[in-house]
Amino acid sequence: MRLAVGMGLFRGAGTLLSIFPRSLAAAASARSQALVYERHGEPVQVLQLKDLERAELGHSGVHVKMLAAPINPADINMIQGTYAILSDLPAVGGNEGVGQVVEVGSHVTSMKPGDWVIPADAGLGTWRTSAVFSEETLVKVPRDIPLLSAATLSVNPCTAYRMLTDFETLAPGDSIIQNAANSGVGQAVIQIAAALGLKTINVIRDRPNLQEVVDRLKSLGADHVITEEMLRKPGMKDLFKKVPKPRLALNCVGGKSTTEMLRHIQHKGTMVTYGGMAKQPVTVPVSAFIFKDVKLCGFWMTQWKKEQTQNKDRFTGMILTLCNLIHKGQLTAPACTEVPLKDYRIALEASMKPFISTKQILIM
Amino acid sequence: MRLAVGMGLFRGAGTLLSIFPRSLAAAASARSQALVYERHGEPVQVLQLKDLERAELGHSGVHVKMLAAPINPADINMIQGTYAILSDLPAVGGNEGVGQVVEVGSHVTSMKPGDWVIPADAGLGTWRTSAVFSEETLVKVPRDIPLLSAATLSVNPCTAYRMLTDFETLAPGDSIIQNAANSGVGQAVIQIAAALGLKTINVIRDRPNLQEVVDRLKSLGADHVITEEMLRKPGMKDLFKKVPKPRLALNCVGGKSTTEMLRHIQHKGTMVTYGGMAKQPVTVPVSAFIFKDVKLCGFWMTQWKKEQTQNKDRFTGMILTLCNLIHKGQLTAPACTEVPLKDYRIALEASMKPFISTKQILIM
Repeated sequence: MRLAVGMGLFRGAGTLLSIFPRSLAAAASARSQALVYERHGEPVQVLQLKDLERAELGHSGVHVKMLAAPINPADINMIQGTYAILSDLPAVGGNEGVGQVVEVGSHVTSMKPGDWVIPADAGLGTWRTSAVFSEETLVKVPRDIPLLSAATLSVNPCTAYRMLTDFETLAPGDSIIQNAANSGVGQAVIQIAAALGLKTINVIRDRPNLQEVVDRLKSLGADHVITEEMLRKPGMKDLFKKVPKPRLALNCVGGKSTTEMLRHIQHKGTMVTYGGMAKQPVTVPVSAFIFKDVKLCGFWMTQWKKEQTQNKDRFTGMILTLCNLIHKGQLTAPACTEVPLKDYRIALEASMKPFISTKQILIM
Repeated sequence: MRLAVGMGLFRGAGTLLSIFPRSLAAAASARSQALVYERHGEPVQVLQLKDLERAELGHSGVHVKMLAAPINPADINMIQGTYAILSDLPAVGGNEGVGQVVEVGSHVTSMKPGDWVIPADAGLGTWRTSAVFSEETLVKVPRDIPLLSAATLSVNPCTAYRMLTDFETLAPGDSIIQNAANSGVGQAVIQIAAALGLKTINVIRDRPNLQEVVDRLKSLGADHVITEEMLRKPGMKDLFKKVPKPRLALNCVGGKSTTEMLRHIQHKGTMVTYGGMAKQPVTVPVSAFIFKDVKLCGFWMTQWKKEQTQNKDRFTGMILTLCNLIHKGQLTAPACTEVPLKDYRIALEASMKPFISTKQILIM
């Protein structure tokens, strides 16, 4: 399974996997169950739970028993065929998750049986019971963090961490603003920012259970939670009597929400766009560039990981930093619903409902 | 004359100037003629040529006889009251120009009588026959460059130079794209880029005398000149067989022009916005940020200069670099129409016509 990217070929891991059974007579222990799609389309229609033969271990292979893997929006879009990177078909769904090492090839040095591992890169195909991956596509994580934290560590908390540290040099007491604050990344931003001593202004859409969501985000460490409607009102002035104007804005929405956030950013501040939930472009008044000197850029964890493939030290360093926050209780997994792999249709349908408040996790 | 800025107070030079005659009996040599406005409005209506008394020379004053001063769009907007910095009223119009030092105060060390000087900062009020300015508001320029080059050096060529050097590290053979390529900045970009060995793709509006403008820009060193319409067409693919995709885009327009330029920028490229002639915002697809990793920022020469007030070395270094290009014939003044100060109404009216192709220069 190689992944074809919009901008070129993408290094996948699945070349080690022969996706269709070589022989029905193969030993049961060399087989795995996987959610496979042979064409793009709606996930519930195109995904099938199939019995696959695992690839040979070889010298640099790592046989991993998958433990848990979330359903993320990017997984859905990859299956639909609308994402910026797409797997060659047939492909196994899922890009994130945690597994336990069962056996390693003779050349493998960075992990051993019993270790927990997560994907170092997108496109691994994590929705399966087991697989042989090559060593460089995996990163070891401590085994003493909760399973659901490990399963949801490699995308959202990493995205949040990089966006909080790579674009502006922030000091305790500085503030940041973000929309889609209830998303997986949004919740990680709240927690990591709180651990760094940063104040967060969190924008969410109005919704039936608004107070419940506000309370939950505040319990995670959110300093201020406001609706998109409040963001547009003059009352924002009062907010900025309590908290400094943000140096950094994190945008996962686009459209009006983005333009409104920009209005409140500090002179010379930065907005990082990492999603476009509103399916509308980012619109910036020319004066914000010229007279306010704002910078706008983007972030995509998949691209960042790709750029670390020659040297995973930054990645493993970040994972250890995040696990340290998890140990200290400063970073928790999002609210999750655990669903057995065989019930994947229920999980897929739940993951695609609007205003979902829990992440669907496939348990293998 | 202090300048009130949108974001705070702006250091002006005019505090040394008492703008109204102290006495009609004052010596003729201590007087000057100046284009003064007492209220904001249309320049031809609110500007008046007045007889003013010059301020005292003092220890750090520099008595300057103005030689030539252009009419720039920002000058017009300041008088209209629509610009981001506005002078306290009454004020003298004009922010750019060249003058000759007549006399210096006893503490002045960086310039002497006979030197040519240009403003180090916006808000000097250059549309007058003479004035006493303080030393730190001026920068010396070599006297062996053409008068019109000196008069038009401190805004457009400086803007072009900074945008070409401060945002991307470009090497000979790299390309840049710019819209409004026929503007003052645009023409400076073409020439400085050519001197640096950069290829330029220059976008201009369609117009009656299109071929004439194309020829002129090519004579300045433009590699490719295209219209806004051509920018939107599939034929752009052929252009990029001849020239690499640009790492840097310079935007003075906004709206569709900007979005179209962004489509052609390289992965991880930068767009710098320095004007908004279309009076429309900059609209960026979310995917350009996330998957193409483009950066958008702004540039404003006035702000840059303000940030150099403690140390003018970078400014004077840039001026010498640009004068070196002028000496070598690689940077020429834009097409200019010289108009005596007393005929300022004619010059103002000409400067506000659409598709103006010459810059109006007041000659004192």
